Formats: sequence, C-alpha cells, structure tokens
Amino acid sequence: MTMDEVLAAVDAYIERHVDRYIEDVARLCAQPSVSARREGTAECAKLVETVLGEHGASAQLVATEGDPVVVGRLPGRSPRTLLFYNHYDVQPPEPLELWTSPPFAPKVRDGSIYARGAKDDKGELVARLLAIDALREARGGELPCSVLFVVEGEEEVGSPHIARFVQDHKDELACDGAIWEEGGIGADGQAELILGPRGMLAVELSVRTLSRDAHSGGAHILPSATWRLIWALASLKGEDERVRIPGFYDGAQAPGPLDLEMLDRAFEKNPNQEQMLRENYGAQRFVAGRSGKDLERSVFEPTCNVQGLSSGYQGSGVKTIVPAEATAKVDFRLVPDQDPEDILEKLRRHLAQQGFEDVDVRLLGWMRPSRTSVEDPLVQLTQRTAREVYGGEPSVYPLVGGSSPVYAFAGPLGIPVTTAGVGYWNNRAHAPDEHMRLSDFKNAARHIARILHGFKDIEQSPR
Amino acid sequence: MTMDEVLAAVDAYIERHVDRYIEDVARLCAQPSVSARREGTAECAKLVETVLGEHGASAQLVATEGDPVVVGRLPGRSPRTLLFYNHYDVQPPEPLELWTSPPFAPKVRDGSIYARGAKDDKGELVARLLAIDALREARGGELPCSVLFVVEGEEEVGSPHIARFVQDHKDELACDGAIWEEGGIGADGQAELILGPRGMLAVELSVRTLSRDAHSGGAHILPSATWRLIWALASLKGEDERVRIPGFYDGAQAPGPLDLEMLDRAFEKNPNQEQMLRENYGAQRFVAGRSGKDLERSVFEPTCNVQGLSSGYQGSGVKTIVPAEATAKVDFRLVPDQDPEDILEKLRRHLAQQGFEDVDVRLLGWMRPSRTSVEDPLVQLTQRTAREVYGGEPSVYPLVGGSSPVYAFAGPLGIPVTTAGVGYWNNRAHAPDEHMRLSDFKNAARHIARILHGFKDIEQSPR
Repeated sequence: MTMDEVLAAVDAYIERHVDRYIEDVARLCAQPSVSARREGTAECAKLVETVLGEHGASAQLVATEGDPVVVGRLPGRSPRTLLFYNHYDVQPPEPLELWTSPPFAPKVRDGSIYARGAKDDKGELVARLLAIDALREARGGELPCSVLFVVEGEEEVGSPHIARFVQDHKDELACDGAIWEEGGIGADGQAELILGPRGMLAVELSVRTLSRDAHSGGAHILPSATWRLIWALASLKGEDERVRIPGFYDGAQAPGPLDLEMLDRAFEKNPNQEQMLRENYGAQRFVAGRSGKDLERSVFEPTCNVQGLSSGYQGSGVKTIVPAEATAKVDFRLVPDQDPEDILEKLRRHLAQQGFEDVDVRLLGWMRPSRTSVEDPLVQLTQRTAREVYGGEPSVYPLVGGSSPVYAFAGPLGIPVTTAGVGYWNNRAHAPDEHMRLSDFKNAARHIARILHGFKDIEQSPR
Repeated sequence: MTMDEVLAAVDAYIERHVDRYIEDVARLCAQPSVSARREGTAECAKLVETVLGEHGASAQLVATEGDPVVVGRLPGRSPRTLLFYNHYDVQPPEPLELWTSPPFAPKVRDGSIYARGAKDDKGELVARLLAIDALREARGGELPCSVLFVVEGEEEVGSPHIARFVQDHKDELACDGAIWEEGGIGADGQAELILGPRGMLAVELSVRTLSRDAHSGGAHILPSATWRLIWALASLKGEDERVRIPGFYDGAQAPGPLDLEMLDRAFEKNPNQEQMLRENYGAQRFVAGRSGKDLERSVFEPTCNVQGLSSGYQGSGVKTIVPAEATAKVDFRLVPDQDPEDILEKLRRHLAQQGFEDVDVRLLGWMRPSRTSVEDPLVQLTQRTAREVYGGEPSVYPLVGGSSPVYAFAGPLGIPVTTAGVGYWNNRAHAPDEHMRLSDFKNAARHIARILHGFKDIEQSPR
C-alpha cells in the first residue's frame, strides 16, 4: 500500500467506527474522577487500564505517592517510540445547575458529546486510541512505531508527583518524542501547536508582627503585619512591571527571530485581540502599556503575580485594628531558562537583604519552563500533517503563558514535545457544558494517525 | 456649712446609699442595648429618661437619624453649667460562653457588679447621679451649678450622629465644661485624666482592573488589581513610617514642654511598658524602633494604619489567578490640628498625582482630634480633687491614641473637656465579665461631687 492508500484507509476506519470510540469516551466520562477531592480517581485509573488493554496495549498501574499513573505500551515496527501524555482526572463539575445535562451522564447532542472530561482529557485519550487502531488496521495489524501511554490522575491539581515518577522510571520511559495532553484548532479552524509552557514558582509570603490584633489607637507603637507585607511586596516589583529581585532575569531567553515570526503570525491571525480582551475581561489598559503585537510577544516576559492578599478586617465598615498577620500568595511565571529553585533562593536573599527577615517564604509549588524548537523534526511533522488534515497553516506558539509539567518529560527524557488534539475555542473545558465536537474528534484522530505514521521516518531530534 | 462639712456629708451619703445606686446600675444593665444590632436601644433610651427623671432631672428624648439622645437638665445655684457626656448603648456581649454570669443578668459578687455595661457606660452614668444626689442632699436640696446630661445611644458604633446633634442643638447645649463618658484609676491607684483623643479618618481604597479574575498565565498582559493596590498603599507610607502624602503633617502640633513633662511622668509611673507590650502583644520591636519614653511621646505622631487587606484567592494552596479586585481599609489617626477633611482631600490629590486615578477612595468615617489645655481651670480642678479623693498625683495624658467624639462638643460649644470615672485597669469593658468595683464607683462619685462643687468657683475657661 502506498502512503496515500494507508491514510485513505485510516480516514475510512475513523469515519466508520467513530461511534464505538465515542462510546469509550462516554464510558470513561461516566466514571467521575475529581482529583481535587480524589473522588473516583482510583476507579477511573482501573477503567483506563481496562480500556487501554481492550485496544491492544499492555497496561499497568504504577503507584505514586498520590493516585497511580497508568502506563500502556503498544509495540511497533520501527525501534522509535512516541509517548502520549494524558490524564484521567477531571476538574470539579460545580456549579452543577449550569449544566444542560448532568456532568457524569455523557450525552451526544448536536454533533458533540457533553460531559465533564469529554474534552479534557478523556476525549483526547480516546482520540489517540482511535488513531492507533485506524493506523494498525490500515497497515494489516502493525504499528509503524511503538507507542507509550503515560496517563496520570493528578493533572488538575498541579501534577505534584509526575516529575518524581518520570525520574524514578526514566529507563522504562525512554522514547523519542511526545504529544502533550491537549491540542486542537483556533477560531480560524486551523491547528494550534504549542511548543512550550512557562515555568512557575508559587510561594506564600506571610508576616506576623504581634500575637494578636491590637487597637489601631496604638499604631504609633505596635508594628503592623500588613505594612510589612505591603513593603515587602512593593520591593518585588515596581510600577514599571520590572521584577526587582537581583538576578531574576538572568538566563531568561529573549525571543529569537523565529519566535517573533511565529508570535507575529499568531497576532496577525487575530488582530482584534485587544478588543477581545477588553470585552472578555473589561480591561481598560494592559500591563506596561502593551498593545498590538506585544500582546503576543510579551509571553517571553516572566511575571510576578499576586494571587491573593489577606490581612486584618475584611468585613463591612470599620474595625480599628493593627493586624497581627498578613499573607500573600505569589506566583512567578518563568521563561526558559529560568530555574524556579534558583528564583526561590534569589527571592529569599532579596527579602533578607531588604530587611524583611520577618517575612516567611513558604514554597507552594514549582514547575520548570520547557521549550521544543520549531525546527525540531517532530514539530515539523506535526505542522505538515496539520496542513494536510485542516487544510491551512497552523498557528505555532513558541511559548504560552500558562504552566504544565512538560519539563518533567522533556528534560529528563531528552525529547521534543508538541501538541495535537480535539479542542476548539469554545469547548468549555473546566466549565459547565464541557463538550467535544465529533468533527474535532475525528480530525484529531486523523492528525495523530499521520504523526504516528510519519514518526518512524523523521530524523532523530537534535536535542 | 463649710466646704469640708459639705464634702463630709457627701461622702456619708454615698457610703449610706451606694446599694440603691447599684440597683439603678443593675436596672439599666438588665436592659440590653446593643447598638451594633440596635437591640433594645429604644427601650434603654426610655429607661434612661425615666431614671434621670427619678433623680430630679427634666429629661427628654431628642430624635436623631439614628437612636435618640437623652437630654437631662438639673438647675443649680450658679449660672455655670457642667455637661456630662455618656452613652446608654453597649458592645455586643459575645462570646457568651466566657461570661461567669449572663451579661444581661447583673450580679454583685466579690465587691463588684458584673454585667455588660456595668462599667461602660451605665455604671459611669449612675456614678454621676450619685454624686449629684449626694451633693444636693448635703447642700439642702440645691446644686451649686447646673448640670446637663447628654446620653447618646450610638457611641459603640462610632457616634455617627452626635456631631450633627450638637450642631443642631448648639444653643440649648450651651455650657461651661464637660466630663467625658469614662475615667478612672491606673495600676498605681491614682486617677487618670485624659485631655484629648486623636482624630481619625477612615477610608476604603479599592481597585478594579478587570471584570473578572483572569488566569495568571496572562499576567504579562492583564493588569492586576492587587498590584495596583500594593503600589498605591506603598506610596502612602515608607518603611521609615513617615506618611508621604504631601502636606500630611501640616498643622500637626508637636508636643510642647508641658505635654512632654506629662507624658514622661506617665512613663515613669510605668517604666516596664516595653516589657508589658512584649508580653501582651508578642511584639519583638516597636514602630520606627521606638522605645522608652518615646512609647508615650509618640502619641503625637499621626499614623497611617491598614486595618485590612482583601484581594483574590485566600484559601489553601494555589489558585493561579490575576485578581480583578482589591480593597484595603485604612485609618489615619490625627493629632491637633490636623483636619480629617483636609487629609482626605490631600490623600485623593496624592493618589491622582501618583497616577492612581484607578484607586477609588470611599470615606468610611472621620472624627476630629481635640485637646483641652492642662492649664484649663476645669483640668486643674479635676486634678486637685483627684488628689483629695485618691490621695496621690493623677496621671495626666495630654493626648491618647484612640479617637472619640470629644471634638463634636469641645469645638462647637467652646468648652474644656476632661475625664473622671469608675474604671480601673482590669474592668474588662468590651470583653466578657465586664464589671465595676463598688469601691471605684464610690470614689468616682466622690470625685465628681467635688468637681461639681468646685465648678461654680473656678475661672472661666480661657478658650
């Protein structure tokens, strides 16, 4: 069979059997798996193991300090292995009253399947299985490369155990590239490829100056925790939005010419972004007066954000106290090659040097930034096959603002990581009426089958 | 009768009839009057009117926009009038489980009467009635000067209507001096005289940058309300504790030589103040490194205090948001002759000049500072009679850290205001097991009777 014939057979298989796979999506979605409260996650891990087995994988649960990771393997003809990172946990479904049909009673209507997890991430997982089955069927039962599934159960709570899991199982997880858990198309109907997340360092700053709140008639004597915190925070970032921690920007990569080209192309696809942000968020102005192309380009600016502040009296009216305690939650979004552990140390040193020894810094979590080069053969393959499936030029984001545990795989395993998937701009992941369109499901399977088919032939990643 | 004979008769009357007056205290305390929830305040106003009438005053309720003020008059021989400012409302009694006997079931035990309001302010009010009755009895039914009672019902919620009440009734309230609602003795058993409260300006600063919280992956674009508030607050006061609002210190009186003498004498009476503050509040250091005598002297430093901060996520763990809103409650304690309305205007101007037009300033309340000179004849009389009653030198505070509506009387009526009363250091006003010692009650009545007796003879206040 020629390559065209194989792909025609793949597409025919997908078209013919899509309903059966939507049933698998429904089966998985009917099993609640809310990691925020560990509701049904153990049962869902077993169900994923079963489903992977039904599709020919040798699957097993691997214990972690949290919920188990499901690892599945399918052998292929070439020695090369493509890893699929997915997760079986979901966001809490609340508020329930905003769902048209119950979140854990999957329903197909108007060409979409509605359920918590339909898109994020159970639909994604099954789209990969559909791609694998279609390709194997078209090739007489043989996969062109090996496939390795890593399906974790704690993605929606920040993947606290995945980096350790990869470290502990580095040899068994050896592979040549990975497709991340999600992907899809933009408002223009073309694929969006994401080449890396920013890293994150999250800390809680807290100050206690007194054993209890005091009457504010004594504010000329008794030290306020609130003021100490305000001054400590103000020392971290100025109104110019530049972070003032010495060495904070060391190692932060500026965007290269290729990055700028990609970001500017993404901006040109959506030149009304300012207007959209104004409408969606009621923003009157943007950080540091940014506008136009800088809205995309500035993703290469690391940030220092305060998630929340809490101190003293927050009710109505007046309470004349000097607060004894004050806390702030702060997250730093980091760009390659900033290192969260290094930033934490610099933060502590800065506070000490500024005289804020009384400000306690507690680590809440961190993720490293990660990036795959746009010139990597896997990225090139993903772009080329996206053009075939979606008929136009994909948007490629060299870096996105959020954070994810890509670093836990890319670094230790030395692999390129990119995205392909079932999403579209309005799939309501994390919100009521989450859904996946069947057309997106089929296109994602077609795209992933083509990536798998081409993966055996591409050059080794230069990394 | 000589003056000594009159005072001997006063003291004998007090000793003989004290129980009857404690019954009046109990009657008043048995009527709840919690202004924070307007619980029983109307009933208590009527009861105060009744009780004043029973003691020979012509009393009436005067309406305000809040609870009524009870005004009572007793004519005297001289044309001079002494005003007693008191209040019939009390603090909420909670937490109830910490009371030995129920807060509104007054109980005499171990030489004290226990109830909410026993000291603050129903005991104070009845101590004045006891003084009046004792003096009148000793003088054959005639008071040496006229007495004017102003008993309001909203003191514990910041006296929102008293300034307006005084303005509206300025002519009827004409008088020559006032004794404030509370007073008493310090740990050394000697009287404490307070010559003025600081003023206060309370505002809420709030910022909204977005219509809803955004994902903190967008922190390089979407402006944070939290950061705007932090920077705005940091512009108000530096780590040196100096307020940075231009003109803030204009008109602020530095303590004069007499003030410093009084403050230093108060400090010498209690040289272990640092140690006590460390024990009571767990303070490791004091504002601006103050210590020793400066702990007392610095009451002449106006303050800028943050009562509370609220923004974004305050739960456990991490929530990756850019907060859309942030608020802070700020109080400024003002010294004579700072003017809260002037400070409010300067605050607004400062924020605008610093580029914080997005920070909304909402007025929560204000009180002016107020001071009576230590050289005022009423203060001299109060000091001299305190020596007679308590046997030693009273502590005189030219200014205290808290705020009260003294200004509403002192300024418009042009009168000196000082203190005398039933308190002692451990009377638990505002707390469970509030009580008044019968010995303090009797001494306060003796002291007030002597002030009333001498008031006719002192020079007109120079104000």
